[in-house]
Amino acid sequence: MAGNTFGQLFRISTFGESHGIAIGVILDGCPAGLPIDLDFIQSELDKRKPGQSKITTQRKESDTVQILSGTFEGKSTGTPIAMLIPNEDQRSKDYGHNVDVYRPSHADYVYDAKYGIRDHRGGGRSSARETAARVAAGAVAKLLLKHHGIDIFAHVTAVGKINAPNLESGNIAELLALREANIVRCADPATANEMIEFIDGVRKDGDTVGGKVSCVIKGCPAGLGEPVFDKLHADLGKAMLSINAVHGFEYGSGFEGTELRGSEHNDSPIPNPSAKGQSFLTITNHAGGILGGISNGMDITFKVGFKPVATIMHNQQTINAAGEASEIKGKGRHDPCVVPRAVVIVEAMAALVLADHLLRNKSSKL
Amino acid sequence: MAGNTFGQLFRISTFGESHGIAIGVILDGCPAGLPIDLDFIQSELDKRKPGQSKITTQRKESDTVQILSGTFEGKSTGTPIAMLIPNEDQRSKDYGHNVDVYRPSHADYVYDAKYGIRDHRGGGRSSARETAARVAAGAVAKLLLKHHGIDIFAHVTAVGKINAPNLESGNIAELLALREANIVRCADPATANEMIEFIDGVRKDGDTVGGKVSCVIKGCPAGLGEPVFDKLHADLGKAMLSINAVHGFEYGSGFEGTELRGSEHNDSPIPNPSAKGQSFLTITNHAGGILGGISNGMDITFKVGFKPVATIMHNQQTINAAGEASEIKGKGRHDPCVVPRAVVIVEAMAALVLADHLLRNKSSKL
Amino acid sequence: MAGNTFGQLFRISTFGESHGIAIGVILDGCPAGLPIDLDFIQSELDKRKPGQSKITTQRKESDTVQILSGTFEGKSTGTPIAMLIPNEDQRSKDYGHNVDVYRPSHADYVYDAKYGIRDHRGGGRSSARETAARVAAGAVAKLLLKHHGIDIFAHVTAVGKINAPNLESGNIAELLALREANIVRCADPATANEMIEFIDGVRKDGDTVGGKVSCVIKGCPAGLGEPVFDKLHADLGKAMLSINAVHGFEYGSGFEGTELRGSEHNDSPIPNPSAKGQSFLTITNHAGGILGGISNGMDITFKVGFKPVATIMHNQQTINAAGEASEIKGKGRHDPCVVPRAVVIVEAMAALVLADHLLRNKSSKL
Amino acid sequence: MAGNTFGQLFRISTFGESHGIAIGVILDGCPAGLPIDLDFIQSELDKRKPGQSKITTQRKESDTVQILSGTFEGKSTGTPIAMLIPNEDQRSKDYGHNVDVYRPSHADYVYDAKYGIRDHRGGGRSSARETAARVAAGAVAKLLLKHHGIDIFAHVTAVGKINAPNLESGNIAELLALREANIVRCADPATANEMIEFIDGVRKDGDTVGGKVSCVIKGCPAGLGEPVFDKLHADLGKAMLSINAVHGFEYGSGFEGTELRGSEHNDSPIPNPSAKGQSFLTITNHAGGILGGISNGMDITFKVGFKPVATIMHNQQTINAAGEASEIKGKGRHDPCVVPRAVVIVEAMAALVLADHLLRNKSSKL
Repeated sequence: MAGNTFGQLFRISTFGESHGIAIGVILDGCPAGLPIDLDFIQSELDKRKPGQSKITTQRKESDTVQILSGTFEGKSTGTPIAMLIPNEDQRSKDYGHNVDVYRPSHADYVYDAKYGIRDHRGGGRSSARETAARVAAGAVAKLLLKHHGIDIFAHVTAVGKINAPNLESGNIAELLALREANIVRCADPATANEMIEFIDGVRKDGDTVGGKVSCVIKGCPAGLGEPVFDKLHADLGKAMLSINAVHGFEYGSGFEGTELRGSEHNDSPIPNPSAKGQSFLTITNHAGGILGGISNGMDITFKVGFKPVATIMHNQQTINAAGEASEIKGKGRHDPCVVPRAVVIVEAMAALVLADHLLRNKSSKL
Repeated sequence: MAGNTFGQLFRISTFGESHGIAIGVILDGCPAGLPIDLDFIQSELDKRKPGQSKITTQRKESDTVQILSGTFEGKSTGTPIAMLIPNEDQRSKDYGHNVDVYRPSHADYVYDAKYGIRDHRGGGRSSARETAARVAAGAVAKLLLKHHGIDIFAHVTAVGKINAPNLESGNIAELLALREANIVRCADPATANEMIEFIDGVRKDGDTVGGKVSCVIKGCPAGLGEPVFDKLHADLGKAMLSINAVHGFEYGSGFEGTELRGSEHNDSPIPNPSAKGQSFLTITNHAGGILGGISNGMDITFKVGFKPVATIMHNQQTINAAGEASEIKGKGRHDPCVVPRAVVIVEAMAALVLADHLLRNKSSKL
Repeated sequence: MAGNTFGQLFRISTFGESHGIAIGVILDGCPAGLPIDLDFIQSELDKRKPGQSKITTQRKESDTVQILSGTFEGKSTGTPIAMLIPNEDQRSKDYGHNVDVYRPSHADYVYDAKYGIRDHRGGGRSSARETAARVAAGAVAKLLLKHHGIDIFAHVTAVGKINAPNLESGNIAELLALREANIVRCADPATANEMIEFIDGVRKDGDTVGGKVSCVIKGCPAGLGEPVFDKLHADLGKAMLSINAVHGFEYGSGFEGTELRGSEHNDSPIPNPSAKGQSFLTITNHAGGILGGISNGMDITFKVGFKPVATIMHNQQTINAAGEASEIKGKGRHDPCVVPRAVVIVEAMAALVLADHLLRNKSSKL
Repeated sequence: MAGNTFGQLFRISTFGESHGIAIGVILDGCPAGLPIDLDFIQSELDKRKPGQSKITTQRKESDTVQILSGTFEGKSTGTPIAMLIPNEDQRSKDYGHNVDVYRPSHADYVYDAKYGIRDHRGGGRSSARETAARVAAGAVAKLLLKHHGIDIFAHVTAVGKINAPNLESGNIAELLALREANIVRCADPATANEMIEFIDGVRKDGDTVGGKVSCVIKGCPAGLGEPVFDKLHADLGKAMLSINAVHGFEYGSGFEGTELRGSEHNDSPIPNPSAKGQSFLTITNHAGGILGGISNGMDITFKVGFKPVATIMHNQQTINAAGEASEIKGKGRHDPCVVPRAVVIVEAMAALVLADHLLRNKSSKL
């Protein structure tokens, strides 16, 4: 119940601190017989790793993943797949300043309050470094989904007040190519340039900025999700909200949809001209592919909001462990904006949720 | 894994269909010795029950709750508390029209796809009637929280495009009195009147409209929530997204916060003039009382967005179970806007999450 | 975590006290489309119900079960099946004697120690009355198993030092007829008579006696059970040990097998003359149908030991709640020997374990 | 649900195959602030490791454990403790013989049936090598229990038909010294010699033999265990039955107790002369320290039966993967009798169960 496990049938447990020996994950419940493509897993990690561009943190980690168990002759065996990612570039001495001083909007204080002890080096367990383990496991989930014809695509659709157009109706392979062609991971090239320039300016100010990531899932069959508490969008929401810095989640019509009337919001089903691919077709998709918590076969769409990174290169007022007024200046190596690296984390968590519900749905009927 | 259970240590399992014999809940894990105030539980159900005003559904249910187990001489015994709410006013014949026709933006189609069988009467398990069971259990959670000095308050802050001012810094008893003084459950009287008038017009149009509910939790000690997947706001988000019609969740600065810079968004801690009550004090509260997934002792704030109810009194295009074009006209008794009745559901789910994490936190340290 | 739930995918949660309003169960995870035969469920409860013969307790309960949810037109819908069994013959006044005095070998003291409060009437939650809820849910599990060709049979194989011959290789329908032809539920008529006479004598002495129940499961396919912690026999063991009064569990060769050499104990596989029915065939079956925690397709066999009932009609030394020496005399209505009524509880728990692993195994491979 | 996780609040997840790169464990839920004595953990592993005497397998593994996360400056931090044990002496070529042939009484066949793929090297995941990970985690559980005054002691009480006297009333430190003074780990020196001589003879015959391990837990407070499904002895039983080769579990009076009358079996409580240490005192302890599934403060006692190891150095009849008759000769390096090495596994699993229930009990009352 200490909450380092996610998923029911396709289940991951992660471990590791920012400046410890390694981080890693056990993936339990992957069906046997799935080809495990290590290169693909590594390529996913490469999209999240630090130091990949001028607009990400300069911490250098190769994030080389090693599979310790659960595969045999290149395939999953049904036993736990453990994966290890050693930490290489820990500059723990950079963090001497936060031993006794609570960094504003960081988790330092609450760890002390909760545990009475705190690994202050790089934020310890509260660091987003933990998400590398999720990306590794999420890559295996993607392989399972791809085997079942399900594809996931996310990209950056907002940085600060700069918004990208909605592209979710496009072809995933093309969107992916467009996205990976720029360092901010927005599939619209013009907006991407604007975003990059803005982030670079923010970085030079020693400041940070928030943003949004949008995600679309294509090829999901109808029937995934459980009807009451474990609604598909509720599990997606929890997954996204568990990512560091996320402050909001909406799916389908989202918060905007709350302003509409039912007569505007309802999606009218129409006869499906082709039984292939989709078994359900509606004119609009305000439902975001989910009705009553269960996928309906249409595209699943959702959006995730990330607050600005808390570490800035400015002097800030704060308190120390004794509760006295103190001052702190940003140190360490951090991102001016997390969304470019968060794209693959969003996809990984979505993949984990879908894979889990794919397995859970096997017991729905006789 | 069929997902009718919520919570880990303070755990509920609900059952029942809209037009079955009864709905109910087992609450397992309530600590022994808690006085169980049946009148309070009933009063919470009364706030959710149908037929309470002109802007709610006209279905008549007394929603009288009976406790079947788990209490002795007025106190919890540590064994499961089962509660039963009989269904009284099932007009199942009203639902003959959706046996073979899929209502737009309802779960009819996905239940058929998932289960191959569907209790079509009133939406069966997909009906929001299930939430009465949550409110009953949530009332017990509130009693436990109150014992620990934690209070929860939610109210309607938007109906369509009508927005209420932010009142979360106020006194909960006063806000509650203001909220319960009007039928839309908005604590700002002027906005409440505007909302009521608007909903009544929408109802006369045979239409529906969405809205938002905002919630604040006061008196929560620092340390609740688990740091990785079971972050306090991730569990709150899942809880809210599991409520019928919810399409979005945000906490603290929410989606608006994603547009800010770190230097604007960071909450600076300041020395706490009074050790009483709060152990942590920040000038602003963009964090919404939660850092790194763990409560910091400040007010916890979040907002929930509800789409418009799908049942409208208009003719709508749809398909039947054979996949052919069909037409459907709204029947049955439904709400023109769910938020007035959803307020107590939001509070109940929040209470369940907090109670669970209160118990989970007991094992954080030696 | 209060432990009133059993199973993962086919999951039950029970509630209710011996002398409360009702006991009951929510069964979550039953696949949709299963015909739910209420008469069969009731007939299973009738085998467990009190007052059925001179060698069982004289408490009179019809144990009439009502299904509250989860079925539609006679079939399961995939939503939770709630079942309720009202308590009818509570003579709570019989239990005034144990309000402040701890009955020897009963749970009175530990409930006070654990909870600080105790529903003393009839033992409250610690009463074996709770097992009626298990039998109701187990009956549904049996229906699911029967649909998949799996049959379960248990009978009494020991009362005190009287032992029955091993009959597990027989035909289940015939064994069942033999078992139900006598009130002690032993399929060997001669031993049954001896057991009945013995129990009746013990009863007249105001005393009680223990016994054993043996169980065989036929038609189970290979592959059920998970290889490490959730071995099929480990889950069967936990299920049996969770039944009131059980002090021991063994499967296959059991404790006797520990005295053998490997060369005697190993079961040699032989070519299977008929592919029908069984895919694996060994000359002996010391494995009890389970290898490495996973069913191998042979008969699954295990044995359960029940201690004598603690309530006797003798004067006994004990202590009171103040820790002082006290005396207690047996009152209330109790069984001189539980095994005749426990047979169907053993079968129910075995059915729940098998049904759970049947569903879990659906995710083993692609 | 693939079952590689054990425990609820104090929870382990293990991974790794016999001849893979490493085995390991994530321990989640250890309270923060516990001193983690790595030397103690290693010393526990040394008691389980292969090659330690002439009566154990000759596979050579140092079983050196490395802690990857979850500790800081020698103490637990409340985050997951990951431990890694590299495999060093994998002679996978020894296992070429079981690629296509099913070894009698091994799990080869069922893995193929369940997963359709099998890591045949050394039995893969079905090997008892996995238990090293349990011992590492169990050592941490022991440290937590010792902090709360709870001690666990197990020793070998039967090898084949050679039985040791009951010593459980003794002092644990003295029993431990006696046990560790001989290679069979029986605390009675005379019986130990007899057992060693017998096992050595069995080994020379190329054969194997089963045995029993008895365990006593001292200092456990009253109140641990949950009253219905998660009875303390039910969880102990499952834990023991999940250990490789275990075929039986009994606690307190066990199977022998089933032959007694209630008047013989009941344990009469007596006033406790000293409030110190034990809060409950009975003349006899047929209950094995557990009433109604909850610890009563007396010594907790149980016994575990291990079947003989399946690998023998004899020619054996079997079948191959095509279902045809085949012959196999034992190869590989195996134990003639597992109980000497199993003693510390039994203790580890008992410690994990107790630690889990210690944390769970924190929520029993207000």
